[in-house]
Amino acid sequence: MTAKPVDAESGIGRRRAQALGSKNRVYTDRRAEIISAAAELFRRNGFQATSLAKIAEAIQTDRASLYYYFSSKEEVFDVIVTDVVERNLAIAEGIRDSDATAVEKLHFVTTQLMSSYAENYPFLYIYLQENMAHVPVKRQAWADRMRAVNRRYERAIAEMIQQGLDEGTIKAVAPAWVIANGLMGMISWTNRWFNPNTSSVSAAEIGEAYSEILLSGIEKA
Amino acid sequence: MTAKPVDAESGIGRRRAQALGSKNRVYTDRRAEIISAAAELFRRNGFQATSLAKIAEAIQTDRASLYYYFSSKEEVFDVIVTDVVERNLAIAEGIRDSDATAVEKLHFVTTQLMSSYAENYPFLYIYLQENMAHVPVKRQAWADRMRAVNRRYERAIAEMIQQGLDEGTIKAVAPAWVIANGLMGMISWTNRWFNPNTSSVSAAEIGEAYSEILLSGIEKA
Repeated sequence: MTAKPVDAESGIGRRRAQALGSKNRVYTDRRAEIISAAAELFRRNGFQATSLAKIAEAIQTDRASLYYYFSSKEEVFDVIVTDVVERNLAIAEGIRDSDATAVEKLHFVTTQLMSSYAENYPFLYIYLQENMAHVPVKRQAWADRMRAVNRRYERAIAEMIQQGLDEGTIKAVAPAWVIANGLMGMISWTNRWFNPNTSSVSAAEIGEAYSEILLSGIEKA
Repeated sequence: MTAKPVDAESGIGRRRAQALGSKNRVYTDRRAEIISAAAELFRRNGFQATSLAKIAEAIQTDRASLYYYFSSKEEVFDVIVTDVVERNLAIAEGIRDSDATAVEKLHFVTTQLMSSYAENYPFLYIYLQENMAHVPVKRQAWADRMRAVNRRYERAIAEMIQQGLDEGTIKAVAPAWVIANGLMGMISWTNRWFNPNTSSVSAAEIGEAYSEILLSGIEKA
């Protein structure tokens, strides 16, 4: 990690935090520009092959100047992922709280999640592959926040299933949370084999197929 | 990696290969004893916390003597996993080649895989979590072999589904391989949340539930 000495030498970490806190328009615009350039490089070349220096190059600046905005490429990645993951949570909780039937809700959320993996390719897949297991100390606060979001997401799905069990529209093949994990597994396992840029089957087709399997599998006749 | 210098200094890697090749009974018995002790430590304390020194301690020898049997704890782990994974493949291909109906085959293979994750806990889960993505160079040959086994396993599942599509007993909600990946995902995602030692729901119950969801989801009425 090269970020640490730079932070310590120049107090740039503190200046970065201050600039971000000030909500200065020029600063936040430039930050958004960096995020967008980094996202494009991550997508095109992969996370490993993308360095902070290459992100700097893409927006015609140097790595030292970039430190004023981000301490590491991991931090840029985390910002991108956090945004998508929290948006998906808001969608799932919104669906859960809607007036739809359990089966309608589950259909929507299953296909939405699958589409989201494709639209945000490869960010959510990299995030899944990280598995929050070996996150370094400096990213622990972020990892904790993400774990909380994941738990709420899974709970939202389990609550949709519970609604169906309560309504009697869904078969009690297992406790709601076990069914929820099965749904998550079917969709999230796509991180191992699905690439929207090369696949002969689209994310929409996969989402519909898995939703149909799951729902006709648990729906009461 | 401390194994490399030791191998280079004393030619122990060559002696290890020779001993293994000779199929000497005393050698292979001792090797099996090491595997069993290591498995127990991995299971109890986790892979990270288990060192070659601790494995040596468990069988009352020293690390230097252990090098005559294994170059690293990764190698012990690989032997354990290879055995289980290849056995599961043999089972899956045996089922595929049997006279059962597609639905019977898929029920058997789904519940068998789930049971296998529990019986061999945590080895297959650690193996899944490794994801074959960041395997170091010295384990590449093993990783290639495992990838080939994985591909055959997935193909066996896809062929069972294809049989059902051909027989007209399974609905063509998606190509066979997409359905196969969904099945694998449901079962293998359990690596994220299932611990047979603490779970309120057993592996058998999970296997039956997921099998029921999948099969009533794809079976033609």
